Amino acid sequence: MKIAFTTDLPQEGFKRLAGHELYASLDEAEILVSTFDYPVPRKMIESMPHLRLIANFGAGFNNIDLEACRERGIRVTNTPQPVIEPTAELAFALMIDIARRVSEFDRLVRAGKAQFGVMRNLSHSLYGKTIGIIGMGRIGQALARRAQAAGMHIIYHNRHRLPDEIEQKYEANYVDFQHVLQDSDYLSLNLPYTPEVHHLIGKPELGMMKRTAYLINTARGAHVDEGALIEALKSGIIAGAALDVYEHEPAISTDLLTLPNVVLSPHTGTGTWEGRIAMCENVCDNILAFIEGQTNKMNIVL
Amino acid sequence: MKIAFTTDLPQEGFKRLAGHELYASLDEAEILVSTFDYPVPRKMIESMPHLRLIANFGAGFNNIDLEACRERGIRVTNTPQPVIEPTAELAFALMIDIARRVSEFDRLVRAGKAQFGVMRNLSHSLYGKTIGIIGMGRIGQALARRAQAAGMHIIYHNRHRLPDEIEQKYEANYVDFQHVLQDSDYLSLNLPYTPEVHHLIGKPELGMMKRTAYLINTARGAHVDEGALIEALKSGIIAGAALDVYEHEPAISTDLLTLPNVVLSPHTGTGTWEGRIAMCENVCDNILAFIEGQTNKMNIVL
Repeated sequence: MKIAFTTDLPQEGFKRLAGHELYASLDEAEILVSTFDYPVPRKMIESMPHLRLIANFGAGFNNIDLEACRERGIRVTNTPQPVIEPTAELAFALMIDIARRVSEFDRLVRAGKAQFGVMRNLSHSLYGKTIGIIGMGRIGQALARRAQAAGMHIIYHNRHRLPDEIEQKYEANYVDFQHVLQDSDYLSLNLPYTPEVHHLIGKPELGMMKRTAYLINTARGAHVDEGALIEALKSGIIAGAALDVYEHEPAISTDLLTLPNVVLSPHTGTGTWEGRIAMCENVCDNILAFIEGQTNKMNIVL
Repeated sequence: MKIAFTTDLPQEGFKRLAGHELYASLDEAEILVSTFDYPVPRKMIESMPHLRLIANFGAGFNNIDLEACRERGIRVTNTPQPVIEPTAELAFALMIDIARRVSEFDRLVRAGKAQFGVMRNLSHSLYGKTIGIIGMGRIGQALARRAQAAGMHIIYHNRHRLPDEIEQKYEANYVDFQHVLQDSDYLSLNLPYTPEVHHLIGKPELGMMKRTAYLINTARGAHVDEGALIEALKSGIIAGAALDVYEHEPAISTDLLTLPNVVLSPHTGTGTWEGRIAMCENVCDNILAFIEGQTNKMNIVL
């Protein structure tokens, strides 16, 4: 098989494709390995006459023109499994960082401005607090597992209520959208982006949150009205925010960059070396299953 | 009772002492509320002729001249319980921060230097890695609980091996000192300071660690030879360090302040608002039990 790549990915993740022609040109390739951040528009698809499979690297696939694929009968796969733990890990990392003011204190110490003392440098505990998770899929549940061990109470909102045994496992209580906003000390967004949830968190929703609450977003930037968030952070409507994603990515509102009560991460939810290799392996799984005609072993999007 | 304070602590934590004379002068006080960072030397004790109890705020009590107390029959109490969860929480926060490079990336983003991209800003997972905990007391176990939920393998070294049921609870394996150094991806110090463990981690020990390993210290600065650590960080003997405590606190070696592979926290292990109030409440418990003669309800150090 002739396989093209949109992006330079770690070669060690593609050892199992030895024997196939890697790095083929687009006009010859039968398989395209694309990455979630690399657009694959209709025009590009039309430039690949032999294309039969797009094996996307990433859980999301809104980089690909699915309609153009459908018309040509091109299969599309993704890598949903390896992103779960790294993304939940980063959500937890951002939450504990903003709570315990780790990045802020690191900045103070490096600037020589930190003063030691028993009533100085105080922060807030996660322990005993309530986390509200919007989007209780696999990533939300992997976050819940960590939050539970951290001594947090868990409430969640989801399109569908989860089965009893999963709720019991995490001691998680299902609440409606209004109550997940009102009752959370830490509110984490872990739902996929669709146009229906554009600006899910805007000025009215921020106004319903506790003034002591923190917002954590590792899902998609457009879930949040960034302008409204900045106003809320400046005026004390909420206490702080920890963000991995931005509404106009890769642009970040310059107002965010100087706020003390935010932690900012450059879209690294899935970005661990271990996670990247696992995602490459998942791409290989999909390609090899496709070649062998084992559609039941593929992560099929289309 | 006449009660003196060395330090201005939150008044809301001492409501249960209403009726007693708070903020008494030293020459009149029968009870002294001191804090772990405030020295109570022999001379100060001698200036308090009516002193019967020192109710220390903190788990540590090496700020107090115990011998001078012993000679006068002065009781000393501490607050071991409320420090457990906040300290374990910070140890976990520092570990996940250095692994996922949260503070470093926040610095990059704020400086406008972060570039987005699928193979940029990569970090390391905790998930699937091995944490080595030196000092598996209550704080070490509270850290183990969090690490287990984060998908880590747990090894520990301790003066005494823990009972089977505790090892099984955390899926923790007891190893000797050499192996906790050699086998850990993340090495966390959670033991109390005594002169015997001064410079427990020095040049030879750092040399035994993996070159990919991270050191986390939320215990006491003098556990680590700070000069040797700086050399190890500069020369790649270990990958990084996350520190809440320093050998010559409040001084921090200036070499640390500019290293990219460290996270620095200004001794805030127990420093949450919630934790501070809980520590005040524990001080009240000890004072009220002392007044009522219920020594079995006191956290007695001496």
